Amino acid sequence: MQIMVINPNTTATMTRSIERACRRVAAERYDLTVCNPERGVASIEGNADGAIAAFHLLELIERSARTQQVDGYVIACFDDTGLHAAREIVAAPVVGIGEAALHVASLVSARFSVLTTLQRSVAILERNARAYGFSGETFRVHASHLAVLDLESEQSYAKLLARAQEVLAQDHAECLVLGCGGMSMWSTKLAADLAVPVIDGVTAALSLVECLVGLGIGTSKAVTYAYPTSKQLMT
Amino acid sequence: MQIMVINPNTTATMTRSIERACRRVAAERYDLTVCNPERGVASIEGNADGAIAAFHLLELIERSARTQQVDGYVIACFDDTGLHAAREIVAAPVVGIGEAALHVASLVSARFSVLTTLQRSVAILERNARAYGFSGETFRVHASHLAVLDLESEQSYAKLLARAQEVLAQDHAECLVLGCGGMSMWSTKLAADLAVPVIDGVTAALSLVECLVGLGIGTSKAVTYAYPTSKQLMT
Amino acid sequence: MQIMVINPNTTATMTRSIERACRRVAAERYDLTVCNPERGVASIEGNADGAIAAFHLLELIERSARTQQVDGYVIACFDDTGLHAAREIVAAPVVGIGEAALHVASLVSARFSVLTTLQRSVAILERNARAYGFSGETFRVHASHLAVLDLESEQSYAKLLARAQEVLAQDHAECLVLGCGGMSMWSTKLAADLAVPVIDGVTAALSLVECLVGLGIGTSKAVTYAYPTSKQLMT
Amino acid sequence: MQIMVINPNTTATMTRSIERACRRVAAERYDLTVCNPERGVASIEGNADGAIAAFHLLELIERSARTQQVDGYVIACFDDTGLHAAREIVAAPVVGIGEAALHVASLVSARFSVLTTLQRSVAILERNARAYGFSGETFRVHASHLAVLDLESEQSYAKLLARAQEVLAQDHAECLVLGCGGMSMWSTKLAADLAVPVIDGVTAALSLVECLVGLGIGTSKAVTYAYPTSKQLMT
Amino acid sequence: MQIMVINPNTTATMTRSIERACRRVAAERYDLTVCNPERGVASIEGNADGAIAAFHLLELIERSARTQQVDGYVIACFDDTGLHAAREIVAAPVVGIGEAALHVASLVSARFSVLTTLQRSVAILERNARAYGFSGETFRVHASHLAVLDLESEQSYAKLLARAQEVLAQDHAECLVLGCGGMSMWSTKLAADLAVPVIDGVTAALSLVECLVGLGIGTSKAVTYAYPTSKQLMT
Amino acid sequence: MQIMVINPNTTATMTRSIERACRRVAAERYDLTVCNPERGVASIEGNADGAIAAFHLLELIERSARTQQVDGYVIACFDDTGLHAAREIVAAPVVGIGEAALHVASLVSARFSVLTTLQRSVAILERNARAYGFSGETFRVHASHLAVLDLESEQSYAKLLARAQEVLAQDHAECLVLGCGGMSMWSTKLAADLAVPVIDGVTAALSLVECLVGLGIGTSKAVTYAYPTSKQLMT
Repeated sequence: MQIMVINPNTTATMTRSIERACRRVAAERYDLTVCNPERGVASIEGNADGAIAAFHLLELIERSARTQQVDGYVIACFDDTGLHAAREIVAAPVVGIGEAALHVASLVSARFSVLTTLQRSVAILERNARAYGFSGETFRVHASHLAVLDLESEQSYAKLLARAQEVLAQDHAECLVLGCGGMSMWSTKLAADLAVPVIDGVTAALSLVECLVGLGIGTSKAVTYAYPTSKQLMT
Repeated sequence: MQIMVINPNTTATMTRSIERACRRVAAERYDLTVCNPERGVASIEGNADGAIAAFHLLELIERSARTQQVDGYVIACFDDTGLHAAREIVAAPVVGIGEAALHVASLVSARFSVLTTLQRSVAILERNARAYGFSGETFRVHASHLAVLDLESEQSYAKLLARAQEVLAQDHAECLVLGCGGMSMWSTKLAADLAVPVIDGVTAALSLVECLVGLGIGTSKAVTYAYPTSKQLMT
Repeated sequence: MQIMVINPNTTATMTRSIERACRRVAAERYDLTVCNPERGVASIEGNADGAIAAFHLLELIERSARTQQVDGYVIACFDDTGLHAAREIVAAPVVGIGEAALHVASLVSARFSVLTTLQRSVAILERNARAYGFSGETFRVHASHLAVLDLESEQSYAKLLARAQEVLAQDHAECLVLGCGGMSMWSTKLAADLAVPVIDGVTAALSLVECLVGLGIGTSKAVTYAYPTSKQLMT
Repeated sequence: MQIMVINPNTTATMTRSIERACRRVAAERYDLTVCNPERGVASIEGNADGAIAAFHLLELIERSARTQQVDGYVIACFDDTGLHAAREIVAAPVVGIGEAALHVASLVSARFSVLTTLQRSVAILERNARAYGFSGETFRVHASHLAVLDLESEQSYAKLLARAQEVLAQDHAECLVLGCGGMSMWSTKLAADLAVPVIDGVTAALSLVECLVGLGIGTSKAVTYAYPTSKQLMT
Repeated sequence: MQIMVINPNTTATMTRSIERACRRVAAERYDLTVCNPERGVASIEGNADGAIAAFHLLELIERSARTQQVDGYVIACFDDTGLHAAREIVAAPVVGIGEAALHVASLVSARFSVLTTLQRSVAILERNARAYGFSGETFRVHASHLAVLDLESEQSYAKLLARAQEVLAQDHAECLVLGCGGMSMWSTKLAADLAVPVIDGVTAALSLVECLVGLGIGTSKAVTYAYPTSKQLMT
Repeated sequence: MQIMVINPNTTATMTRSIERACRRVAAERYDLTVCNPERGVASIEGNADGAIAAFHLLELIERSARTQQVDGYVIACFDDTGLHAAREIVAAPVVGIGEAALHVASLVSARFSVLTTLQRSVAILERNARAYGFSGETFRVHASHLAVLDLESEQSYAKLLARAQEVLAQDHAECLVLGCGGMSMWSTKLAADLAVPVIDGVTAALSLVECLVGLGIGTSKAVTYAYPTSKQLMT
């Protein structure tokens, strides 16, 4: 089994950090590739970043599908960059880390808080959740006011922890979802400090893709995610 | 890793059928117990059946938790009998086959149909879906008008297939969810005949529980699913 | 006319308190029985308590239906313990005090607050409200952080009043719903102190059942609440 | 106890028909007045009819409140003509027959159909239901294509019955709500012919108002339904 | 092109203020009449005020339609007084300033705050928004606690600005909707002081009506807004 | 005033057709540019087409913003290709033809039908509508089963008309929204044949952008649509 995890931004250190998170849960029973597009944006903060990154992500997926056997894909940005489009161009299952985290949190809590980076991403995550079929009644999305590329310092951890405590109390929530792929490294520490389950989308998505592949269930190609209609591309 | 799959009704042949479905996806990497309560109802069709079955299911789970190490539970009735209560009495993750199927279907399709047994179960399944955080905009629930204990015959398969085609067309759906644990045996055949993904809750739930255990994520004991308050039981 | 009010927990003093509330509004025009199951839980705080209580409640209702003429039932716990199941096993109307309070509050206010006991019950009450057809846009549910069996002291009243003032202000609400059968005794005092209508579910439900009986309207036995399918019970 | 039932249109024969429905359920324990405004519209079919009727209804209620003791009001048109406004000008409870029917149907069925007169009223009834806090997930509203003033003939009954059977089947519904005050006379006959509960808003509202008066609960005057601010009227 | 803007209350100074707002955006390319009914209420604060004003507004519109060519109407009260009824009695487009502001704000922001006058109007505006097809997920409605006729002073401006800053922060909103026709005069100043778009319903509605007339699109007369059925009026 | 209408696909004949639609409503009071990106996809049918087209559209908008004064943008594909991203990179208002049509239809009807091209676009349009703040209760989206590039023939018109009649009847709708920019040419003919308002998104969006520019209201740059954070692009 071959699973490909794609960080849709171009920051290689972040890709390595995502790979470390994946390696913690990935068993030897499947092969794992963690990569990022060569072109695009250094981090995805907002809709324009996302649109640019989606274009390059699609190119990467299309190329991978032509040249190798991939059994499942993870899109490792919490706004699930290009998710619906990616599902059209391959038949293998494609899972975004944002949707994965929402599904997993729903299995272990009645109310949870999503803590993302900037306020500008909140509307995007809420819109996505709706599109996946969630009503929004079981969770709230909040900004930590930390930028994607600033998440790694100890100081950031302290801010993240304080903000997490604040939003859990405010939401009467019993589970925390980390709303950015760059927060993976803090999930174990946060779970210990908060004493509630902390869901990291990266490992959640990897695990869900393995689950889908194991079940033999791929993306439906019947209607919405049918292959794109063949027509002239002006490139 | 020890996973316990519980058929909440008392029909042993159905428990065996559920076990066969489980064995198809269960790897040698974990131990699997498939069982049912000794007392209760022969099949669960409606709220009263469910309430009686839930009581005996809870007893079984409580006893299992006292006498052995169980890492995860599956409740193998599509109405997710006693799910919220079960989550309170153990710390290990508990996944119902109804919720599992909804989550998995959401990962591979934009619109799906749930096909259950009797019309009287439709309101229960819709109510459950709402409770899990689904808006109901991405799927519809339909009755096949086949009783739980009548699902095994070839004639039933023909009826199920015809009804599945009908509801998929009506809903413009691209994925079918089997809305009863007793339909597991037909999932592969239906997927071939319908040419859309067919989600069987039993294998979906087993796979999701394995995923949760692998991620080290259990039910949150912080608020809703805290252990029951200790107090005198009049038994 | 014979109306039976059932406190689904086993605490007889609470049953007596519920009876006192009922006697205040019950006219001599019907006979009233207020009782509780002999076995079960001393108070219902959460899903597991509810599942156990529901089982014994159903037994009690089934027995009553076999041995006497009952024209209507009230389930006197705010989580409406076993409500849907109870409706299946009798044809007489069955009203829960939780649903009753929501309906009555909706008739006299545009926005109201529900004040229950513990935070763990909030998700249950919200889930119930959805199941009854409410959107949740006209009310919010809050915890008072008082346990069911601690409600009777004067000190509890002070806490309840303070919390009620707080949630009414927070919700811009104009009506208070008492979210526990054990709060009935405080309804008149709270209404005076808060200067808004205060809805006690016990008297609301009793009054609604009388209303249904008077109108000659029982539970529909056509689909969802049809009698349970006859089949072998393993007891 | 004095209850006033107001038919907001000016058709006296319809007022008499409403009175007959009321008399069937009204006990000798309260006084009942059934009346209509002297000016306005002969029937209410649509928003403009409703706006004109509301004005005259308010005048009638205001006058009644100045000259007599009225303990509760029923507005006997299914679009609940002027309901929110009426609640502002008196402190006694005011119940519309449309809302009453929705609340009562919710107590005895999980899914019901509302059958009104013309298609143009459907959007009004759906809008009202939302305003009362209903999500709309438990019922559908349909037109019978019969005008208000044409409801009384035997031929109309046949059409009504046929249409009721059709919408119940279409909605998988288990209860019928009569969506016009002029249909009251047919409720018993329809219940017998359809074998599901049939809810007539007129008797439902009368009964609910009696229930509110008995409970000592009036409209909240705290925010939304506070008395109109005193200011100069140009009349 | 002839556009009529109607202030549904009887306060002529407010009508003049609305006219000044209109003149700022109205081009010479159409004729503009700004008027108010001669009878009714001095300001509209709540449902009863609205019902009385609607009656006189309808009379004014009906008269105007008989005596002159009007190509489009604006109803210049934020509760969109009598909007649905007005649409029935003419074929020309009718736009309320409340709905206009919601539509325009939706085109330039993902989340906005509506700031109205008194708390009693909040439920009305939320109910209206639902009726227009909005889910309510993209905005919140708040009271400024300023009465309609008190809006003109500098002191009111200071209060309005402070409250606007408060609700924008609370809602994480990026656009402000002025929830009362009497606030028009402050829109430019508020936009400068708040540094977010500020939507004034009066100019928004005028502009949208011009847009509809230019597109040749009037109110659909097919179902909901068909002309009222001809029948005897008792006036 | 300079308005730029962008057809996000690369089919020049479709761009010309869109321009003809625009010229019918565009006054001499503003300058109009109708164009398309040089690279991308020949038509947008599904998510992958949309993601590719969005990338090239953003490039075109960015270039236009650097080299000329543009006061408002229209995105002339009904899936509102790249709308949220486009709003981030310019301060001028940006209106999609999909959202424009929904807003305009809401002003003239209580219930409308959207008729798009292929079934695969239905989920996209429903998802978009949700994101714009619509509840989905006032309209339904349907496929005509006609491809974008097949819309121009007389035979297509006949199919479109028949399907429009069908969906209007099915939805009890009173207004039709044309769910593809390529249907503009048929709007007048359809309005005549259907006798309900027919909303063409192209002219609706052009008119709304003019309205926003006239009101001096641009996209809020405060949160969601702030300019993209400056960071290194790997291009």
